[in-house]
Amino acid sequence: MSGPLEGLRVLDLGTRIAAPFCAGLLGEQGAEVIKIEQPGAGDFMREIGPFLSVDGPDGEEGYSLFWAVEGRGRSSVTLDLRREAGQDLFRRLAATADVVVENFRPGTLEKWHIGPGDLDPKLVVVRISSFGQDGPYSQRPGLDRVGIGYGGLLNLTGYPDRPPVRVGVTISDYLTGVFAAHAAVSALYARDARRSGGGAVIDAALYGAALRILEWTVPAYDRLGLVRTREGNRLANSAPLDNYPTADGKYVCIVAGSDANFARLCRAMDQLDLLDDPRFAKLADRAEHGDVINGIVAEWTRRLPAAAVEEACVACDVPVATAYTAADMFADAHFAHRGDLVEVDDPVAGPMRQQAPFPRVVGEEVPVPTGAPRLGEHTRDVLGGLLGLSEAELDQLADDGVV
Amino acid sequence: MSGPLEGLRVLDLGTRIAAPFCAGLLGEQGAEVIKIEQPGAGDFMREIGPFLSVDGPDGEEGYSLFWAVEGRGRSSVTLDLRREAGQDLFRRLAATADVVVENFRPGTLEKWHIGPGDLDPKLVVVRISSFGQDGPYSQRPGLDRVGIGYGGLLNLTGYPDRPPVRVGVTISDYLTGVFAAHAAVSALYARDARRSGGGAVIDAALYGAALRILEWTVPAYDRLGLVRTREGNRLANSAPLDNYPTADGKYVCIVAGSDANFARLCRAMDQLDLLDDPRFAKLADRAEHGDVINGIVAEWTRRLPAAAVEEACVACDVPVATAYTAADMFADAHFAHRGDLVEVDDPVAGPMRQQAPFPRVVGEEVPVPTGAPRLGEHTRDVLGGLLGLSEAELDQLADDGVV
Repeated sequence: MSGPLEGLRVLDLGTRIAAPFCAGLLGEQGAEVIKIEQPGAGDFMREIGPFLSVDGPDGEEGYSLFWAVEGRGRSSVTLDLRREAGQDLFRRLAATADVVVENFRPGTLEKWHIGPGDLDPKLVVVRISSFGQDGPYSQRPGLDRVGIGYGGLLNLTGYPDRPPVRVGVTISDYLTGVFAAHAAVSALYARDARRSGGGAVIDAALYGAALRILEWTVPAYDRLGLVRTREGNRLANSAPLDNYPTADGKYVCIVAGSDANFARLCRAMDQLDLLDDPRFAKLADRAEHGDVINGIVAEWTRRLPAAAVEEACVACDVPVATAYTAADMFADAHFAHRGDLVEVDDPVAGPMRQQAPFPRVVGEEVPVPTGAPRLGEHTRDVLGGLLGLSEAELDQLADDGVV
Repeated sequence: MSGPLEGLRVLDLGTRIAAPFCAGLLGEQGAEVIKIEQPGAGDFMREIGPFLSVDGPDGEEGYSLFWAVEGRGRSSVTLDLRREAGQDLFRRLAATADVVVENFRPGTLEKWHIGPGDLDPKLVVVRISSFGQDGPYSQRPGLDRVGIGYGGLLNLTGYPDRPPVRVGVTISDYLTGVFAAHAAVSALYARDARRSGGGAVIDAALYGAALRILEWTVPAYDRLGLVRTREGNRLANSAPLDNYPTADGKYVCIVAGSDANFARLCRAMDQLDLLDDPRFAKLADRAEHGDVINGIVAEWTRRLPAAAVEEACVACDVPVATAYTAADMFADAHFAHRGDLVEVDDPVAGPMRQQAPFPRVVGEEVPVPTGAPRLGEHTRDVLGGLLGLSEAELDQLADDGVV
């Protein structure tokens, strides 16, 4: 893909989501991304569902659609980093690169003699982990849920009368990936635009990404002793505000807490008499009678399909959102106009719609990523082309199981 | 603050969260950030809770801790952009800047003659909005909940037997902010390192940021017709895995779906006999008997405080996380070691702990942002210093209500 980072090369040593996502975002800005995978196995994302049934060499097999998204926009080279020959090849590849992204447990690259100290200091090395590169928990195993747990986002999400609920996607993985991409490009800016000459080693911990977006939670404890917890969809000091059920089994989120929006909503519901009810006169009154006013709004939404609720709210300038499913997105005029669902040509599964690169640049086409590569699809091209290995050398490496 | 973007200047025209957060992240990488606020009112974040009681000119008043976090790391200049004199001064300020970040409804800057077409094309202009700069919904009002609603994240979060639940923080705001910061620095890289000369206009929509991280949701609908929905904390194909209650009223998330982690968990619980139970032999067996095995784990956690559950799991290398509150973070050795809670010196409220800038650079101190500025605190310094306005001119502007 073309883009502002064209000409830069990124080595993606990551598995699962956070680190490969970071590398992929650099790719969506124009960098070349080469994924390094363990021979035979490859990224774990290749093995988790949902699966599409495709023709394989031994008949029908399952192809991971999760991999199809997270693996896109890069080439795949197999290299056994647990072996010296693989480590040597990696160091040679890194000498041609600008960024390395990895998410092994802290210390693993060093054990393999391919840590930042073994590589050119001009490299930007992005190290993603659950708990960071140092500290008492740094060697603990972790996953996205560990990130949202320690990072405090888990405890804030859900209903007060139930256990906290995870965010529906692996949010600390994605957050960490994009924060790390931002920091990596900033480091490249210093190196190449300000000519600092040096790279940087970025330490991005899953729990830290969640913590960074925790709003006022930390100072409110420090200065008020307030231990924030989850509130569901409503807020104690604002109403009406909730996700309301509709006649067609969907949910619409209506945000009409402010006096101005409440008046607009009354017009949208054609219930202007509510404005004369002293229980709903001001924000504080409505908050006090939150169950009543939220109940009245729910009664209205229950009689209508989501599209009709939306239309009435939009006509009166009330903030509204249907809780969209993929089916809603595929049918939506705005998504179609904006080209939010791009067709990616997957080498195994053929064309499939995926979420577009984000954000976009005004006046430029939304770039379309290449499909997720087959395991080792580019091993020979990359090791031959970039490192000048001969066919015979490549055959030997393959025989030895190094690639 | 020093950092890789030192020497760059960012004008923050934003209000609320997404756009100011984007500007602040550029600041945490070293750029100078100047916030432009409406005289008299300023950013809405100054007016929302939770509030700390402080001494004001007219006695006790409430100071927004949300503002203290989101407003940090920048100076404040008041400027009425609805008036020609304010617009003129803004264009002169923009001529000294590298980045402008804004989140007015699309078309507003143009109406005020300060849109990208009125400014130097070398600028990077980040435009954040609910629905993007074009398309049928672009003029609709919106907020974070609209972003997660249309972006599909809302529908995926929560329990299957309840309405979808919002993520506990304004996640589409934060996500959009960091994606936009990444894109802005990439555009600066092209301009200054690759000497493309030109800036860029970045169109970042709240719903698009949520959509981008939707995992496999889009292709699964496209190729399998699968309409994904929320699953709570458990997964249909994996167990044990849940947020379990503890004796001290907390919740611990334990992830032990895989055969290896399940065996470790049985050791942690000192219930090795479970490994011989055919109902729990393999992942698929445990998934089939998910209620039973999750119930057994919950029975164990209910007898222990969260710290003891954690300790037992960590000793056996089982991924575990307590759903941390702020109180847990303040008491945590890892947070202390890593310096995750920095002391920011707020000009109104004095020192307070806040979440640290993220991510960090290995070998460098975590930078400490300056406290959130008082409204217009730097108006005279900036307009005098950068634009060379005289004291008399500044007095006149103040009298006219332009600043």
